[in-house]
Amino acid sequence: MSGFVSFVSAGPGDPDLITLKGAARLQAADVVLYDDLASGGILDKARKDAHLVNVGKRAGRPSAKQDYVNHLLVEHAKTGVRVVRLKSGDSGVFGRLEEETSALRAAGIGFEIIPGVSSASAAAAAAAIPLTRRHTARRVQFVTGSDVTGDLPEDLNWSALADPYATTAVYMGKRNFPELARRLIDRGLPPQTPALLAESVGHSTQRLVRTSVSGLAGLLQADPGMGAAVILYGPLAEE
Amino acid sequence: MSGFVSFVSAGPGDPDLITLKGAARLQAADVVLYDDLASGGILDKARKDAHLVNVGKRAGRPSAKQDYVNHLLVEHAKTGVRVVRLKSGDSGVFGRLEEETSALRAAGIGFEIIPGVSSASAAAAAAAIPLTRRHTARRVQFVTGSDVTGDLPEDLNWSALADPYATTAVYMGKRNFPELARRLIDRGLPPQTPALLAESVGHSTQRLVRTSVSGLAGLLQADPGMGAAVILYGPLAEE
Repeated sequence: MSGFVSFVSAGPGDPDLITLKGAARLQAADVVLYDDLASGGILDKARKDAHLVNVGKRAGRPSAKQDYVNHLLVEHAKTGVRVVRLKSGDSGVFGRLEEETSALRAAGIGFEIIPGVSSASAAAAAAAIPLTRRHTARRVQFVTGSDVTGDLPEDLNWSALADPYATTAVYMGKRNFPELARRLIDRGLPPQTPALLAESVGHSTQRLVRTSVSGLAGLLQADPGMGAAVILYGPLAEE
Repeated sequence: MSGFVSFVSAGPGDPDLITLKGAARLQAADVVLYDDLASGGILDKARKDAHLVNVGKRAGRPSAKQDYVNHLLVEHAKTGVRVVRLKSGDSGVFGRLEEETSALRAAGIGFEIIPGVSSASAAAAAAAIPLTRRHTARRVQFVTGSDVTGDLPEDLNWSALADPYATTAVYMGKRNFPELARRLIDRGLPPQTPALLAESVGHSTQRLVRTSVSGLAGLLQADPGMGAAVILYGPLAEE
């Protein structure tokens, strides 16, 4: 008999921002496959005797790493146990969820997806602002600021991203933001468009910087820093 | 002494999709101001002796209603109690959060925002698919399908919304989707673009329909139905 896999969204880092359902699945799991959720404390919610497997630090090419995670997921589930695949933020947003669900389908293993708090929502909440504004930012969009090689993706929709009436959340974009900002400004986005850097949200090292698109580009050019971050830009509400 | 307001995101409807932090704030609240969260069961998490105030069914013009909610929020907080303002989904996404935080700032009342699971994330999870796809949908965007008068907003970014390489989540868009679809197709979106109608997610009446943009337009033209819904379209992963 095959086991069952619950994809659990861990939320942005604060262990109290996991959902009740996610916490219950984590508590019931025999095996937990997790990415590197540094200092998150979320694994304390797993059973003491659960088998915790870190799949986030595998060296090598991204594709090899993903194949390895898929393989581990299938092999653990085949033993008939309850597996939790823990992903940070909302597992459906830039989490490579599809590769893993496809591997489970191919192996005939059942699964469910427990949604969670996205990093963009958490970043806005930490800054005490909404993601959408009624009159000035009725569209919100999430994009990645780096492709699998770590560079700025070449196939971004520049017109959509330079829209001054949308709020944009850039994931994994700290290092490439100076280049992204340059291209957005070339496309007509005002350099003084408000921007928020939300780093290590929910951790003791949380850092929020409110500035402009051009100001943030300069800041990150000088020092991208170490913490994981989400960048918001657009007509952001006042803090 | 003034009270304190916690904006708590209730999540998409399933009471177990609130966060641990949100549930703790709800449990500690003296007063809970909530919108109409029909059959959600989430209010069972409040204290038995908490004062529960429904602010979601006030008749009248939208602006009058919002002013009334702002007023109630400020007046309750001024009595020095712990107030929870419960909003469905993620409170920062199309939740009119800014109007309420502005009223509290003006009155000198402290507040915090507890983020939650957005309706778009919950809709995708219910259909067992991710919101983003690695190669074909690296941008995800949320928009409203109706303005304050109930019509399709006139100032939508049609080029951003007709992008065949993005996944779009349309909130409150069921009634206007036939018109939205017509304009998107005029702008070049292929009529056969995959679409998902996710209605009453997490409730016993949950309904998921997978079809195409043109197919969904026809279906909703014939019968928009009653339940609250999120519509996803774009290069959606296979179920």
